[in-house]
Amino acid sequence: MSLVVNVAGWDAEPWVETFGEMLPGREVATPENIRDPEKVLYAATWKHASGSLSHYPNLRAIFSLGAGVDHVFRDSALPHVPVVRVVDPDLRDRMSEWVLLHVLMHHRQQRMYDWQQGERIWEDDRFQPAARDVRVGLMGMGVLGSDAARKLAMMGFDVSGWSRTRKEVDSVLSYAGAEELDEFLAETDILVSLLPLTPDTRGILNASLFGKLARDGRLGGPILINAGRGGLQNEADILDALDEGVLKAVTLDVFATEPLPQDSPLWHHPRVTVTPHNAAISEVEAIARFVVNNIEALERGEALTGVVDPARQY
Amino acid sequence: MSLVVNVAGWDAEPWVETFGEMLPGREVATPENIRDPEKVLYAATWKHASGSLSHYPNLRAIFSLGAGVDHVFRDSALPHVPVVRVVDPDLRDRMSEWVLLHVLMHHRQQRMYDWQQGERIWEDDRFQPAARDVRVGLMGMGVLGSDAARKLAMMGFDVSGWSRTRKEVDSVLSYAGAEELDEFLAETDILVSLLPLTPDTRGILNASLFGKLARDGRLGGPILINAGRGGLQNEADILDALDEGVLKAVTLDVFATEPLPQDSPLWHHPRVTVTPHNAAISEVEAIARFVVNNIEALERGEALTGVVDPARQY
Repeated sequence: MSLVVNVAGWDAEPWVETFGEMLPGREVATPENIRDPEKVLYAATWKHASGSLSHYPNLRAIFSLGAGVDHVFRDSALPHVPVVRVVDPDLRDRMSEWVLLHVLMHHRQQRMYDWQQGERIWEDDRFQPAARDVRVGLMGMGVLGSDAARKLAMMGFDVSGWSRTRKEVDSVLSYAGAEELDEFLAETDILVSLLPLTPDTRGILNASLFGKLARDGRLGGPILINAGRGGLQNEADILDALDEGVLKAVTLDVFATEPLPQDSPLWHHPRVTVTPHNAAISEVEAIARFVVNNIEALERGEALTGVVDPARQY
Repeated sequence: MSLVVNVAGWDAEPWVETFGEMLPGREVATPENIRDPEKVLYAATWKHASGSLSHYPNLRAIFSLGAGVDHVFRDSALPHVPVVRVVDPDLRDRMSEWVLLHVLMHHRQQRMYDWQQGERIWEDDRFQPAARDVRVGLMGMGVLGSDAARKLAMMGFDVSGWSRTRKEVDSVLSYAGAEELDEFLAETDILVSLLPLTPDTRGILNASLFGKLARDGRLGGPILINAGRGGLQNEADILDALDEGVLKAVTLDVFATEPLPQDSPLWHHPRVTVTPHNAAISEVEAIARFVVNNIEALERGEALTGVVDPARQY
């Protein structure tokens, strides 16, 4: 059997090498180097070109090399085989690190203290709210959102979660479905988006949604943190909301266009923090191990882990 | 009975008011306004002037209004009554927030990304280590250190703790006493100091100690984070260690002189983060409630909570 490594925007080399070591005796190659397309049983992909997986008549599974699969479903000629996303504790823990870091930066007003340091101003804030008085709302309560929610709750925050279907996580208040979204937003000071990008969620982070966030919170205005996908957010609406005081500040790891274009006003807005889509970059080894475990399970006749529902696209 | 509120550098008013509400029918006043010194049974203090508590012949207890008591023991004419420090979950949780925020900022290289954002550079770091490969060592494993250690371990860090006497906290590797300090330092990438300031710990964060930190870590050099007391650190040694690459970066909440003097090079050093001694500012209500609960316990004939050993001074 062969595994094709079909990635765009990433260096394919470490993937080919790592998979090669983990699958001795099998062919692992990029599309150009595959000798016999009929022998390709598995594809490991990141942003593969539309139609480029249709050359393999015996394909058995498509593995996304990240937690998201929106890049897979963009393919209008996608073969009808299982699509698998990475469900890896390493990737999950890294995402929770990033979420806690950026929630804490807003909660503890780190940007204000950065500014004070630059001005040599020594001024504490005796009105710092306790974590229990700050409401963090997670949109998307899958593997990543649930883990971040648990860790935020452990830090003492008042945490709630919203998802398409109800998810119960320890002490986290649970909201579900379109009919409970407004209520969830009205009780949220820091909104953390870890949603998958699907036809239902595209553009969901927009002016209408921002206007529904809590106005009575302890942080001086609502905060938006998005580490889901850039396609979830309307960037013009974000900038307007910041300038109108509808949002106090935002932290974004993902953007409508990546890399973020040089002329985007997000780069230099004083209340925007930009990270380069690296909230949860996992190690090549950890992700390749997950894929290889799945291939081995499939060949033993066992079920795949992380199969995506093509109707929901997550 | 009367409670004297004897604070320097802080506004006494909210303390007098809050204690007054919690102790109806009793006198609560600043030293100037106390009517009869013989009636003063309790003192609530922060950096009181040396000798200023000796006016009260019937004093029964001295309450520090923070977690530290070094400011109390500076008093060369300190009355021989129990000294009590604040042991409050609110203060503890705030300290852990600050510690996790600043450990995560170093771990996730937030300062590099801040710089990249300023330069409009989109460059991720595919070599970000996992938390399990980063060793965080806590000096001081009392109420605050133990809580921070537990939360850091929950985030996946490889956590160890050093203290005068051995403290066992869950999965945290424990080192104790002067004889195990070098071994502890040799296994530490991020050193977090939450030590009390005592004759034994004064100046302990110095060139000799920095030189013993791990050189083989995943972060490109050792990190120092101090939220204990400024008297623990030698600031000239810190600056030298940064410039010589012995330390990669530092985050300081406390300083030898506070407010940090305008001419301190720490303000503008590119690898120093300064916060204005606010890592764990608790709410006046939470601290006053702790003190009042203690007064009520004492008057019921029960034991005080948080009494300091005068020999150890913590």
